[in-house]
Amino acid sequence: MFSEMLKNVRERVPLVHCITNYVTVNDCANILLACGGSPIMADDEQEVEEITSVCGGLTINIGTLNSRTVKSMMLAGKRANVLGHPVLLDPVGVGASTLRTETAVKLLENVRFTAVRGNISEIKTLALGSGNTKGVDADMADAVTEENMDRVIAFAREFSEKTGAITVITGAVDLVVDGKQAYVIQNGHPMMSKVTGTGCMLSAMMSAYLTANQDAPLRAAAAAVCAMGIAGERAYDRMLAFHGGSGSYRMFLMDEISNLDEEILEQGARYEIRES
Amino acid sequence: MFSEMLKNVRERVPLVHCITNYVTVNDCANILLACGGSPIMADDEQEVEEITSVCGGLTINIGTLNSRTVKSMMLAGKRANVLGHPVLLDPVGVGASTLRTETAVKLLENVRFTAVRGNISEIKTLALGSGNTKGVDADMADAVTEENMDRVIAFAREFSEKTGAITVITGAVDLVVDGKQAYVIQNGHPMMSKVTGTGCMLSAMMSAYLTANQDAPLRAAAAAVCAMGIAGERAYDRMLAFHGGSGSYRMFLMDEISNLDEEILEQGARYEIRES
Amino acid sequence: MFSEMLKNVRERVPLVHCITNYVTVNDCANILLACGGSPIMADDEQEVEEITSVCGGLTINIGTLNSRTVKSMMLAGKRANVLGHPVLLDPVGVGASTLRTETAVKLLENVRFTAVRGNISEIKTLALGSGNTKGVDADMADAVTEENMDRVIAFAREFSEKTGAITVITGAVDLVVDGKQAYVIQNGHPMMSKVTGTGCMLSAMMSAYLTANQDAPLRAAAAAVCAMGIAGERAYDRMLAFHGGSGSYRMFLMDEISNLDEEILEQGARYEIRES
Repeated sequence: MFSEMLKNVRERVPLVHCITNYVTVNDCANILLACGGSPIMADDEQEVEEITSVCGGLTINIGTLNSRTVKSMMLAGKRANVLGHPVLLDPVGVGASTLRTETAVKLLENVRFTAVRGNISEIKTLALGSGNTKGVDADMADAVTEENMDRVIAFAREFSEKTGAITVITGAVDLVVDGKQAYVIQNGHPMMSKVTGTGCMLSAMMSAYLTANQDAPLRAAAAAVCAMGIAGERAYDRMLAFHGGSGSYRMFLMDEISNLDEEILEQGARYEIRES
Repeated sequence: MFSEMLKNVRERVPLVHCITNYVTVNDCANILLACGGSPIMADDEQEVEEITSVCGGLTINIGTLNSRTVKSMMLAGKRANVLGHPVLLDPVGVGASTLRTETAVKLLENVRFTAVRGNISEIKTLALGSGNTKGVDADMADAVTEENMDRVIAFAREFSEKTGAITVITGAVDLVVDGKQAYVIQNGHPMMSKVTGTGCMLSAMMSAYLTANQDAPLRAAAAAVCAMGIAGERAYDRMLAFHGGSGSYRMFLMDEISNLDEEILEQGARYEIRES
Repeated sequence: MFSEMLKNVRERVPLVHCITNYVTVNDCANILLACGGSPIMADDEQEVEEITSVCGGLTINIGTLNSRTVKSMMLAGKRANVLGHPVLLDPVGVGASTLRTETAVKLLENVRFTAVRGNISEIKTLALGSGNTKGVDADMADAVTEENMDRVIAFAREFSEKTGAITVITGAVDLVVDGKQAYVIQNGHPMMSKVTGTGCMLSAMMSAYLTANQDAPLRAAAAAVCAMGIAGERAYDRMLAFHGGSGSYRMFLMDEISNLDEEILEQGARYEIRES
């Protein structure tokens, strides 16, 4: 039941340390508050280990990374591992530069992630970059469709087996996969891609769900994806009624996350569970 | 009269230099414009002294600080002191890491602040960290209540006497205290804590009030607190009527600051003045 | 026809690399999406050349610059020149510090810009700083009026001739000038100055227009200015009807950019073309 995942976030108010990009950091902080968690942003190498120690979970997002923050990501990730905190990797734009690819691969080698969330292209790059070419078809399309679904799920499962992390591939269809099961999720709205940072926001919120639900990480990750997708659908309806555009859509998205309740989540979630 | 404080901000359009975190910096810039001031953000050590020289006031906020910006804070703070500009310290998250605590303490030692604004826990940490343990009870609760009010005010007064700064402690009840008087302010709404940066925003706006009202700093600081609290109350009413959540609340908060007039401020302010 | 400029942005979805300040970076990303383009933000010297290579255009904005990002601006700008990508300079706050002035001048010396956009005071500082004092009258007012229009246009033309860039001077009246022609644009609303980053946002959006319309850069730049101004006018009407303030105005501005269509742009554009 996803409703329990949400309930636990609201009751336990997970404190999530975010090392993230400066483009969408405000939205990440606000969505953590909106969903029921609490954010701390800190990226200096002198303090990240201490900050992560007072938190319950950690998100590492490599958008606008630089040599200073790369060090901090490594330090915080390792410390979170020692403490047994859930750690999520959002490999924003991996593949677009050597720095991003090398950083993401190095993070995967040195930090044990609870979940990795990206679009299909980012996850493919990550799998290839980390030598996990087996599951990657050179011609595997950059969108998940009914036709390639089984292959993408198999690829995600292999990536999960190699990394030990839940693999979350978001797009028109969202997949949340570990070594055994795959949630195939149909929530969401195309308008979400017209606002910067909806992926980053989902990653931040997912960290709160993972932190508050450590006995059921796969379900928690899937619940976060559904929550975001449902909010995206409802925000679109509100935007239309308001005669708005992408500016008001961004606001309504936050409103819907903050007003999401267990009933809306249970009734709105559209997914099936497959063997992975 | 608080109305005069607001009037002076609108008429004098104080230019405030902000060295602040990248999480809420956009909100800080926008609230400075909304209240009637004008913002400049600059944090490189090569330019902060020049930038602060063309401004009327300075805000130093230690959220997401790093070794580069710590140097800039020190340089700008000292320069502002030489120029006689109001300087405000917002010790965000002090106590959560050694870097933050040491930076805040070092700033207090080297810069003469006009005001220090934080929550009770931050101000306690600051007082302890700077050796001012006398006023701090180990068991002093982390919330200001009617029961511990006198002790908190006495503690704030001692901190003010030691630092020479107005001490502003915000929470369910807000205190604005110097060596002689204490404003006890009852404005505000719990929803404010569901939006990131309402504290940072208040600090930025307070700098504008201090800069435009240098002959009455205590009253100016109290007026800024009331202004923010009233906006928080009114924004909540608007959010409810809009069937909104934390996303629209953030927007309405900004709307209310930009539309605040002298009458709303005078009539909405709920405070009493005590001997400190 | 401006409508064609907009159409090309929507159809070609130009990918724009932004090296920009952390104050308004989220708004820049969102306006790029809203207008029909796509943003990538990256500022580390290790990746900027690669990132700019996968993009179609580049914006360099010197707000909150630091020694690390100055290097990146130079590297990215030179690479974009090699690739023949449109490059825009937004010299935010040039003149307020030696670092900003020297950086802007050095950029102008080393990078060939397609357009430079700033207010009259910034462009004057830039022209003076780069030794182009001829066109600058010491007493030339810091606002463009009907009286000084011809002189400002002549000054802008000379600056364009020296730099090879389209000169865009925005204010109550906006000028878009190259060596031959000048668009004098009357769109916009004073409320735009009450939201931080409307200038940065225009610069980012203009880069998308320049990238999608490389055969008509002057018209593309002018179309972007009109688009922003029309959105500013329409957002004001929506704000009034909503009984809002600067917070909702910012949202409506984004809504109007995202909902702008060819008809609104053609019918709303208020400009004349003069010899420069």
